[in-house]
Amino acid sequence: MTGTAAGVLARAAALGEISEEPGRLTRRFATPAMTRAADLVTGWMENAGLAVRRDAVGNVIGRTRGDGPPFVVGSHLDTVPNAGRYDGPLGILSALAVVERLAAGGVRPSVPLEVVAFADEEGTRFGTSYLGSAAYSGGFKREWLGLVDADGITLAEAILAAGGDPEAAVGSSAPQLAGYLEVHIEQGPVLERDGIPVGVVTAIAGQSRVRVVMRGEAGHAGTVPMAARRDALAAAAEVVLAVEHVGRSTDGLVATVGALELSPNVGNVVPGEARMLLDVRHAADPVRARAVDTIRADVERIASARGVDASWTLRYDTAAVELAPGLRRRLEGAIEAGGHPLRTLVSGAGHDAVVLSRLCPTAMVFVRCAGGVSHDPRESVEEADVGVALDVVERFLRGLA
Amino acid sequence: MTGTAAGVLARAAALGEISEEPGRLTRRFATPAMTRAADLVTGWMENAGLAVRRDAVGNVIGRTRGDGPPFVVGSHLDTVPNAGRYDGPLGILSALAVVERLAAGGVRPSVPLEVVAFADEEGTRFGTSYLGSAAYSGGFKREWLGLVDADGITLAEAILAAGGDPEAAVGSSAPQLAGYLEVHIEQGPVLERDGIPVGVVTAIAGQSRVRVVMRGEAGHAGTVPMAARRDALAAAAEVVLAVEHVGRSTDGLVATVGALELSPNVGNVVPGEARMLLDVRHAADPVRARAVDTIRADVERIASARGVDASWTLRYDTAAVELAPGLRRRLEGAIEAGGHPLRTLVSGAGHDAVVLSRLCPTAMVFVRCAGGVSHDPRESVEEADVGVALDVVERFLRGLA
Repeated sequence: MTGTAAGVLARAAALGEISEEPGRLTRRFATPAMTRAADLVTGWMENAGLAVRRDAVGNVIGRTRGDGPPFVVGSHLDTVPNAGRYDGPLGILSALAVVERLAAGGVRPSVPLEVVAFADEEGTRFGTSYLGSAAYSGGFKREWLGLVDADGITLAEAILAAGGDPEAAVGSSAPQLAGYLEVHIEQGPVLERDGIPVGVVTAIAGQSRVRVVMRGEAGHAGTVPMAARRDALAAAAEVVLAVEHVGRSTDGLVATVGALELSPNVGNVVPGEARMLLDVRHAADPVRARAVDTIRADVERIASARGVDASWTLRYDTAAVELAPGLRRRLEGAIEAGGHPLRTLVSGAGHDAVVLSRLCPTAMVFVRCAGGVSHDPRESVEEADVGVALDVVERFLRGLA
Repeated sequence: MTGTAAGVLARAAALGEISEEPGRLTRRFATPAMTRAADLVTGWMENAGLAVRRDAVGNVIGRTRGDGPPFVVGSHLDTVPNAGRYDGPLGILSALAVVERLAAGGVRPSVPLEVVAFADEEGTRFGTSYLGSAAYSGGFKREWLGLVDADGITLAEAILAAGGDPEAAVGSSAPQLAGYLEVHIEQGPVLERDGIPVGVVTAIAGQSRVRVVMRGEAGHAGTVPMAARRDALAAAAEVVLAVEHVGRSTDGLVATVGALELSPNVGNVVPGEARMLLDVRHAADPVRARAVDTIRADVERIASARGVDASWTLRYDTAAVELAPGLRRRLEGAIEAGGHPLRTLVSGAGHDAVVLSRLCPTAMVFVRCAGGVSHDPRESVEEADVGVALDVVERFLRGLA
């Protein structure tokens, strides 16, 4: 089973049983479940002949023999609450399977390979992102150590409890790396819609997240005439549709109001306040910036026309990441050499590749997933598609030989 | 102070201190606070020379001497949580003050007068409406006795604990009444906007309350292209604006989406489900029915165009109540005789008058309140406006003499 797609799926199933909670998969950073999962991966890596170490935050790093900057292949081992099996582990297990194949074939690439299982990408426990790859790449910030989880445990305490070393995490320096490749489920419907097993990621979209609050005036739903109202929900509804319009009319843009809460939130009271979270993403930062500006002007126009107050708070803004053109061309070559159809796409979600791209040439392969569903137990991939991914990654890594 | 507007405000302040909770006014049905408030009102009534009784659910009824069906004046003594002082008590205290004036002037109307403080109108504790006036008017339903409050106490137990008699409440029969007059704060902005102290209510609006659910498909805000989305919030936003449009384009109609909840409700996920509560009111039932039909067709059109599912559940439907034209003309005469400006208006909220109107000719006077604010500690009335109300009610009741 080693080196096969069936083996990858079997290992994903085994990892999927390692959870903080009975009956569903939740595996957050620095929990006993994460340690058990890391132990399991460590055993597989050792069986594949890799020299395995665990770093200061619990990243599991398995390395082939040889000196010099390694080429890194991996993904993350942590999950969101009530997760599927593949978001993260598929990238680790694909990397491991290809290393097994290469070893079985006696192939030794020109640079050492590192298979990495990052200890935290989802950031669910401490409200962060990329703790694992940040520590791996020398970007772990001291101020994060004071972050507190829902049980009042600090990040520093959690790292210590899991056998790690918070000071060493902060003190880690950026390694020399030859490159990074990550296999990940698409988490979207594009490959399935187009009937394509795997795709080459050209860029990871930049994101703007904004909190938008419309403040009108609460009032009795029976006694305040329509003309006298300053209905915060009606104003918010116009904003939601304006956001959707900007998304629909801008090629490649996604723009979403995912959260909306009212005060009061009662059937017979005109809403006085509506709080929304806005999420805008695009592969090109200037396009995203223009879209955000347009939406902000829409919010102000809507508020002004309705006599309500609007507030706009930018909470998160990350630039788009263009993945390395050279690696991308080699991935495309590997796909064509394997006789697979070629499709490039933009990743709307962030990945460990965002962090690694700051250090070294970085590439990503997306694998088709059923219905585009992710962050859900229904997450599913086809064995044949995983087989294509293994074939592509193997050809790609052989190219390093 | 008896018989004056200042006295009414002082008594409202005294009642406003009688609460279940420290620091804010909450006085629900059959609580110790309600009993204390009823005791205080009983004392005032007895001082005014009324024969006072407390019925099976705790309604306080003070009667002048004389036989035959009484003319009833009153309102409710219970409040919502974190209430103002005037919603309810103003009508009881105005009635009492006018009875004091008539007694002081030696005026004896042609029929006995009853001042009634109803024990429950808001229905906050058991999720009902009009328990007090229902018991008073012989409409108390046996099935209500099994209703349970937030502490697991049944309505029957609560009535017993407050010294009442649940079986007698169920067994009460409809009394013979000469008529009913209720003074109440407007709870809306119309009188203030028009600069009018008191208004004559022509009708109490009928209400339709509907639960509307839009079901689309949740998805990743970064990875699901705009064209592939079935966004439940975007669909709901169209519904909110359609409801507002129907309200604005129909004279006298109010149409509100007061509550909206999403699943999931997370910034980076396209909402999969939006649940709304719709509230539609109008003085004319056919107008309301047409508006509800229009909104329902809008919901279906929006759902169909967006490929989402819509569900529509009518949860509450009450007919409009036209108040007695004869009493209304006499109220208008009393206003004009006092030299006050005349304004008629529709009540968008329900009142005890809805229940009493089933038994006898019923009238209502609205008193201007600051900003139209009600169900809030900021509830406020002007002493001068209360003075106008007392003058109008006195002239009206003298007309019965």
